[in-house]
Amino acid sequence: MSELRWDPLSNNWTIMALSQGRRPQDFWLSHDLPDEPFCPFCVGNESRTPLEVYAHRPSGSAPNQPGWDVRVIPNKVPALGIEGELDNRAEGLYDRMNGIGAHELIIETSQHGRHMSDLSIEQLTEVLKAFRARMLDLRNDSRFRYIFIFKNCRIGTAANIRHAHSQLIAVPLIPPLVATKLQCSQEHFQRKERCLLCDLIRQEKETQERVVSDDGNFLVYAPYASRFPFELMITPTRHQHDFTAQSDQQLRRLAIILRDALRRLRSALKDPPYSMILHSSPPMHSRWGRPDYWARMPFSYHWHIELVPKLTRVTGFEWGSGFHINPTAPEEAADYLRRADIDKT
Amino acid sequence: MSELRWDPLSNNWTIMALSQGRRPQDFWLSHDLPDEPFCPFCVGNESRTPLEVYAHRPSGSAPNQPGWDVRVIPNKVPALGIEGELDNRAEGLYDRMNGIGAHELIIETSQHGRHMSDLSIEQLTEVLKAFRARMLDLRNDSRFRYIFIFKNCRIGTAANIRHAHSQLIAVPLIPPLVATKLQCSQEHFQRKERCLLCDLIRQEKETQERVVSDDGNFLVYAPYASRFPFELMITPTRHQHDFTAQSDQQLRRLAIILRDALRRLRSALKDPPYSMILHSSPPMHSRWGRPDYWARMPFSYHWHIELVPKLTRVTGFEWGSGFHINPTAPEEAADYLRRADIDKT
Repeated sequence: MSELRWDPLSNNWTIMALSQGRRPQDFWLSHDLPDEPFCPFCVGNESRTPLEVYAHRPSGSAPNQPGWDVRVIPNKVPALGIEGELDNRAEGLYDRMNGIGAHELIIETSQHGRHMSDLSIEQLTEVLKAFRARMLDLRNDSRFRYIFIFKNCRIGTAANIRHAHSQLIAVPLIPPLVATKLQCSQEHFQRKERCLLCDLIRQEKETQERVVSDDGNFLVYAPYASRFPFELMITPTRHQHDFTAQSDQQLRRLAIILRDALRRLRSALKDPPYSMILHSSPPMHSRWGRPDYWARMPFSYHWHIELVPKLTRVTGFEWGSGFHINPTAPEEAADYLRRADIDKT
Repeated sequence: MSELRWDPLSNNWTIMALSQGRRPQDFWLSHDLPDEPFCPFCVGNESRTPLEVYAHRPSGSAPNQPGWDVRVIPNKVPALGIEGELDNRAEGLYDRMNGIGAHELIIETSQHGRHMSDLSIEQLTEVLKAFRARMLDLRNDSRFRYIFIFKNCRIGTAANIRHAHSQLIAVPLIPPLVATKLQCSQEHFQRKERCLLCDLIRQEKETQERVVSDDGNFLVYAPYASRFPFELMITPTRHQHDFTAQSDQQLRRLAIILRDALRRLRSALKDPPYSMILHSSPPMHSRWGRPDYWARMPFSYHWHIELVPKLTRVTGFEWGSGFHINPTAPEEAADYLRRADIDKT
């Protein structure tokens, strides 16, 4: 059973994924990704995964059979478990919460070896629709405070599978970095009656020096205080707090600009490992008979996607300080990415 | 010139180490550490480094000559530069500070290929005295808000040097994770007139389940909400906010228990890469004619060392959420480390 634990000195929650129960000898192995002899995400292996919770099946085939092009399944080794009631209690000075949550895998294509940046616009739009559908479904579960969609491409331990997929984790707490963003957005709104990210977008459009692309609906730019070199932000230019409120047409536009950004990173940085993180407003629930603190003003948030190539190593300085050291100015990163030679088809 | 940049959405400062000016092609190279043909930290190569700022010379030899066993030099490629006045200003909605700071390297031994855990107790005590001396010197510089000593062993980019060394970075701001710890400690003290870490130490000593070693002066334990597997905390059991107030005798005791902890990690985890981070109270300065906010109650802090083996990869989930996922319970980690077979000589 997993659990969440709180430390009073660092005011920090950690997810203890104890079902994985890693002993010292589990860490002796090399971290390199081996070639997989068997891929459970490939067509024909549907019976080797947990039962699907969503699929796009253009063929109209039955669930857990071939004929899909996007498929969502629960993770076999989840960081958090879906069963049970929330139980939150003190343990002396510490705090403990049982590890209730959801951990799903979104298989982005039936074709092994294709990257997200190789997908057709139609296919990538279907992946984004799967994100929307799973978020909409899970926000009905009042145990979950936040639903998090992310992707690690060629990052992770040996246990990770190469077949292109994203992950969804629903957690019973607002994660600390999300709480900070929500709080900064709410404070800005209360002071100025404007959205903070809308203001940042306006400033980025005026200076242009960190903008990578702009189709009138979505802006891609390198953030002013980027923690990592060549980090990118993708955000709708019109205010919208909730990713799940996007129309099919808007998701298609997002697919176009997201694939363009992925291809620019791939071209400039020679196919780097990267992570993608989708940030949206938290679900609206009430606890103790009143709305959740963080969900009071969901409209003051502005959804966005972070794209983070993994080029530098995070070391003791970052772990201990919370400061990141970035060796590349975002203005230069944006310039390289604007000039990147990419296939637009 | 380096600079610090602030982002209003994440309330996050990043150090832009622009003197390193990394372009896309600098990231194309493999990140593996090559064998170094030349080591600037070895005896005889003193003229190939910046001039030393501290050395322990049992031979009584002249500065920047052989005959030392610990040597401290400025970093040739510093993340922050020592020259200039602090300059802090807004840039639209963002904030920028010029990158004033110190970045020094503490060479822990004259012998290439020896690890910190191989050093004699006398030698390791000299290393800890060098930490103390450099912190004492740099706290006289009122531009620096925090002085940070850390070590990365076999972690980092190709530019890193294998010859055993630690690093010191002095920064013009309290780093975010340090600010949280200071704040939690101050709030606890104001509420209870007790030190938070003293209270945690008492609880750890009572339950014993996460304690790895305890010599009566220092306690080594696996933190309750460890972010990383086999993470350890080393802390004096008697309250003390300031590392630089340690006597020579106390530093010798620390050397013994620190080396013991390093050898336990090395034995149980087969020589893992790791980071070590030393946390002490910030220097006492005043700005605008009053004491710095974070230095108001330095005595409520309790200095400590974090030891973090690098066993898991930090991925998109951690970068985006601030949550860490740890697959090993600290109680089990402590049990493995207590039973580790180590050389005590």
